[in-house]
Amino acid sequence: MKEISVQTHARFEMIDITAAVQKAVRDEKIESGIGLVYTPHTTAAVTINENADPDVPRDILAALDRAVPLSANYRHAEGNSAAHVKSSLVGASEMVIIENGRLILGTWQSIFFCEFDGPRTRKVYISFKF
Amino acid sequence: MKEISVQTHARFEMIDITAAVQKAVRDEKIESGIGLVYTPHTTAAVTINENADPDVPRDILAALDRAVPLSANYRHAEGNSAAHVKSSLVGASEMVIIENGRLILGTWQSIFFCEFDGPRTRKVYISFKF
Amino acid sequence: MKEISVQTHARFEMIDITAAVQKAVRDEKIESGIGLVYTPHTTAAVTINENADPDVPRDILAALDRAVPLSANYRHAEGNSAAHVKSSLVGASEMVIIENGRLILGTWQSIFFCEFDGPRTRKVYISFKF
Repeated sequence: MKEISVQTHARFEMIDITAAVQKAVRDEKIESGIGLVYTPHTTAAVTINENADPDVPRDILAALDRAVPLSANYRHAEGNSAAHVKSSLVGASEMVIIENGRLILGTWQSIFFCEFDGPRTRKVYISFKF
Repeated sequence: MKEISVQTHARFEMIDITAAVQKAVRDEKIESGIGLVYTPHTTAAVTINENADPDVPRDILAALDRAVPLSANYRHAEGNSAAHVKSSLVGASEMVIIENGRLILGTWQSIFFCEFDGPRTRKVYISFKF
Repeated sequence: MKEISVQTHARFEMIDITAAVQKAVRDEKIESGIGLVYTPHTTAAVTINENADPDVPRDILAALDRAVPLSANYRHAEGNSAAHVKSSLVGASEMVIIENGRLILGTWQSIFFCEFDGPRTRKVYISFKF
């Protein structure tokens, strides 16, 4: 298992971690297989989406904020219930395919760490051990 | 593949199944690797989130109910369309990392079975066979 | 890795690809294990849900459209931001269990390719190589 650190800078943020995942594939000398990209946090998530236009992650974060508003009669006293909900909607992990030592992503796909309750220093685990 | 049974008690409910998954890891003598926690139902889901404060799962269930209301001109005649939608949003499975015979979860992470159309007797499959 | 092609016919559509995934299991002679069903697109997704009543996928697509409307002050200029959001909510992949050469799905479970910005010709990757 490789661990990477992600520093977030805003309450809501999507950070492209594709290069770090590709580096883990290279460091672990994975020729082909499947990798798990997993975050151990409950107010964050991992997703795959487009990064060619930075407006795509911005629109995703805004749409999530509309569907799950920050304030909505939540009972959890820490004030970050919306972040917990988004974490379960987007999900703690993604699976990626590796061939010839490289991630097999679609043309427009990047792997993102999603921050829903930042800014914080966060962790992502990458495992190829099945 | 290990199968566990989950008895739910309400229409909407999140039940912490972390101990049962950890027991499966032990029973199968998995030293390190990755496990799949999967539910074979279409009105339920598996997610990872916080259980330290029971208000977190309550807030998640309430937020899902607001985003996907029980009544909304659905066509499916069984009256549980919202449960099907939530099942696809939260997802049928989660992947977990195992090291030294133990689940590698974040400090606040628990594995939950999510009931969206209970109460029912439900199943969860746990597989380490990749 | 097996690649299958999916032709979609509408802006929003869920297409049952269970038979194609089962065929890949057979073609690859997978006796038991886990399979990854993955789409390399950022305005599509893979999910598992009920197909016995075709109103279930219709209700899911309609509920997603209500939760993430097509028009909502998006910044991404291509007009398909809602599709990107739905892709991250439903997710790019699903994991399935295989035993005795067959998919272990629940009674009501089918595997669906979800089109959120069609019609298009799309791809799905199926990998058993862990």
